[in-house]
Amino acid sequence: MNKSLIVQKYGGTSVGTLERIELVADQIVKTRKTGVDIVVVVSAMGGETDKLLKMARSLAKNPTRREIDLLLSSGERISAALLTIALQARGIPALSMTGRQIGLQTDSTHTRARIMNIDAQRARKMLKENHVIVVAGFQGINPEGDVTTLGRGGSDTSAVALAVALGARQCEICTDVDGVYTTDPRMVPEARKLDVVSYDEMLEMASLGANVLQIRCVEFAHKYKMPLIVKSSFKEGYKGTLICEEDPNMEQPVVSGIMCDKNQAKITLKEVPDQPGIAANIFEPLAKAAISVDMIIQNVSEQGHTDMSFTLQREELDEAMVIMNKVAKKIHATQVSADAKIVKISIVGAGMRSHSGVAAQIFKTLSANKVNILMISTSEIKVSCIIEQKHSKLAANALHTAFKLADKPAKKKNKKKNQ
Amino acid sequence: MNKSLIVQKYGGTSVGTLERIELVADQIVKTRKTGVDIVVVVSAMGGETDKLLKMARSLAKNPTRREIDLLLSSGERISAALLTIALQARGIPALSMTGRQIGLQTDSTHTRARIMNIDAQRARKMLKENHVIVVAGFQGINPEGDVTTLGRGGSDTSAVALAVALGARQCEICTDVDGVYTTDPRMVPEARKLDVVSYDEMLEMASLGANVLQIRCVEFAHKYKMPLIVKSSFKEGYKGTLICEEDPNMEQPVVSGIMCDKNQAKITLKEVPDQPGIAANIFEPLAKAAISVDMIIQNVSEQGHTDMSFTLQREELDEAMVIMNKVAKKIHATQVSADAKIVKISIVGAGMRSHSGVAAQIFKTLSANKVNILMISTSEIKVSCIIEQKHSKLAANALHTAFKLADKPAKKKNKKKNQ
Repeated sequence: MNKSLIVQKYGGTSVGTLERIELVADQIVKTRKTGVDIVVVVSAMGGETDKLLKMARSLAKNPTRREIDLLLSSGERISAALLTIALQARGIPALSMTGRQIGLQTDSTHTRARIMNIDAQRARKMLKENHVIVVAGFQGINPEGDVTTLGRGGSDTSAVALAVALGARQCEICTDVDGVYTTDPRMVPEARKLDVVSYDEMLEMASLGANVLQIRCVEFAHKYKMPLIVKSSFKEGYKGTLICEEDPNMEQPVVSGIMCDKNQAKITLKEVPDQPGIAANIFEPLAKAAISVDMIIQNVSEQGHTDMSFTLQREELDEAMVIMNKVAKKIHATQVSADAKIVKISIVGAGMRSHSGVAAQIFKTLSANKVNILMISTSEIKVSCIIEQKHSKLAANALHTAFKLADKPAKKKNKKKNQ
Repeated sequence: MNKSLIVQKYGGTSVGTLERIELVADQIVKTRKTGVDIVVVVSAMGGETDKLLKMARSLAKNPTRREIDLLLSSGERISAALLTIALQARGIPALSMTGRQIGLQTDSTHTRARIMNIDAQRARKMLKENHVIVVAGFQGINPEGDVTTLGRGGSDTSAVALAVALGARQCEICTDVDGVYTTDPRMVPEARKLDVVSYDEMLEMASLGANVLQIRCVEFAHKYKMPLIVKSSFKEGYKGTLICEEDPNMEQPVVSGIMCDKNQAKITLKEVPDQPGIAANIFEPLAKAAISVDMIIQNVSEQGHTDMSFTLQREELDEAMVIMNKVAKKIHATQVSADAKIVKISIVGAGMRSHSGVAAQIFKTLSANKVNILMISTSEIKVSCIIEQKHSKLAANALHTAFKLADKPAKKKNKKKNQ
């Protein structure tokens, strides 16, 4: 391990303008003066990725993923080059690296590639030569030599993977929020910043739409026990949220946070013949297209037919509907319908492991507020409900209050000092 | 040779908007229907390169060339991906390729790298599989694996180099002008489009500021006898200008064109000690910085001192002045001054080889118009004069008239039919 090395990732908002790039450069100069080595991972300048995507979609309804990857990867290359230039102007020996140059090798699943390996040889050499390395996040290269991207928020994953490959002390995700909150402050004014969150909780939160971190980034950090810090890019002396292993002395309320994921959609197939293999017929083509299905509900069978509903990411709805319309014909379902006006509201807490009754309290709270639950799914440390989008704010506030999340939890009594 | 293959290059204006990218895609569909295979090379969307450069320069006065290359190369990647998407939307099996992917290997001179080799293996495979290949122009990769760019207009060079490597029938430079003109129509309203120009003439024209083609592109084409066509991207059925070997039946006026190069600057070192080795002291550091010097004048030596003036590309003036100020101290020159308000006006014609008196007529014409000549240089087929920028329009018009360039030349009497 390289105790003196930290990896910092700056998001799109933090490098969104030339002025902000200068601010980030100033920050890095200061951090470097504390005697640490730094690898910086940058996202594309805020809005750039959406702008490029919009251009692509104006040219083709479903642009191929390989071309999207080449297109989008440009954004991070631009911000990496610009930040490097700003650092060099401050007398820092900085060097930019693309995904390929930093040795980030992925599989071939364009637009959501998985990291296979990092060949960090060149990066190690550059660090030895005292360089600050500025890495274009979000991108890698596949075995064919084509550019791949890691999916939305992939720069976080790039950062953690690099921190692991280089044996960094910690990986800091520098962003436009102060840390991880009990819930989205724009929805619930009483939302509170958390000081520490366990990997498990953060994993659930990330997978449930807490946009602050990408799930794969947390998985990576968890797997290799890389301490992850989410903090504001520019607020100085402000401790962010540390994501690390669960600790007996960690504050451990029953519920840590409430996530509301708007990026959800539901597809329903009506009157599907209820026979063996039908689920495979439906979900295999989606899996082949690398579309992740989240919750699945199958109604009780009536006269040999059943209705099948499932949820997925909203941006994959169009592609999934094309596939489902074909599938419906093949399996003789009578109707395929899509609903994009739903949200997934989720309650997460490592404390649920030792507390029962959380689900019951959720259902009671929602019911008292006349919020209809469309689907439910649970895990060891979370409960998720699909509800209508129009109810999301009401539900989030009611649950935040019901679980007293605005109050800072008392530390465990048996907390030892200096630990 | 692959008789059915053509390489087409579309410049920044031609892919400057999404609408134009669609038009280019339409053109390619039509061309493909005539039964040819096509490799397309694209520039960055018009204005993009300048925008990126401006950003870099706002962050550092002299951004490093390596970072500039990473930054600028993004522009062509974006347009290549977008055009590929537009082609795919038209049912064309298209595939984008970056400089690296197309195998364009360069030396390590960032921002003006030279092509060392093209490993066209993958391109050949893709062509065999019936793909239209869309190549991000202007860029390559150096032996260290870093991105390099070929200098302004480098996409033309990419296109010709690929045409040669793939054994194409011809290389078409599709641009926003109809072809090569006798002179800049914005300066001389009587300017006339040329149907055929020899490589030699085009080489001189390109090196003299006819912005329609980059000199290296013409050198490359000349070396490998690759027919080069300059034509409008969108005007259909409009023959551009063919650049090829000189031909006895080619129209061969004494003067083919007048070029006016505004991208010129002059540096003067005053009172340089006149001793052996002094020129090397001055020009070696410039050569090391890959700055090309054009004309050089040394005054008659007075009392062991001499004045030395030379011209160079205007955009390299700042960098050259930094170097020259150091050199001046070392060699005890008393003063270094820069003049960016000059232009180089040049008269080119393969016919000059067999005609004398062209230079005399130029000097007479300029003198009659009270245009002062600051420097002169000549070659077998051109005469160049450095004049003050304020005289450029006057001089261009006077020379265009003096050499009767507005009139289409009569064909040679001995022209055979069907040749």
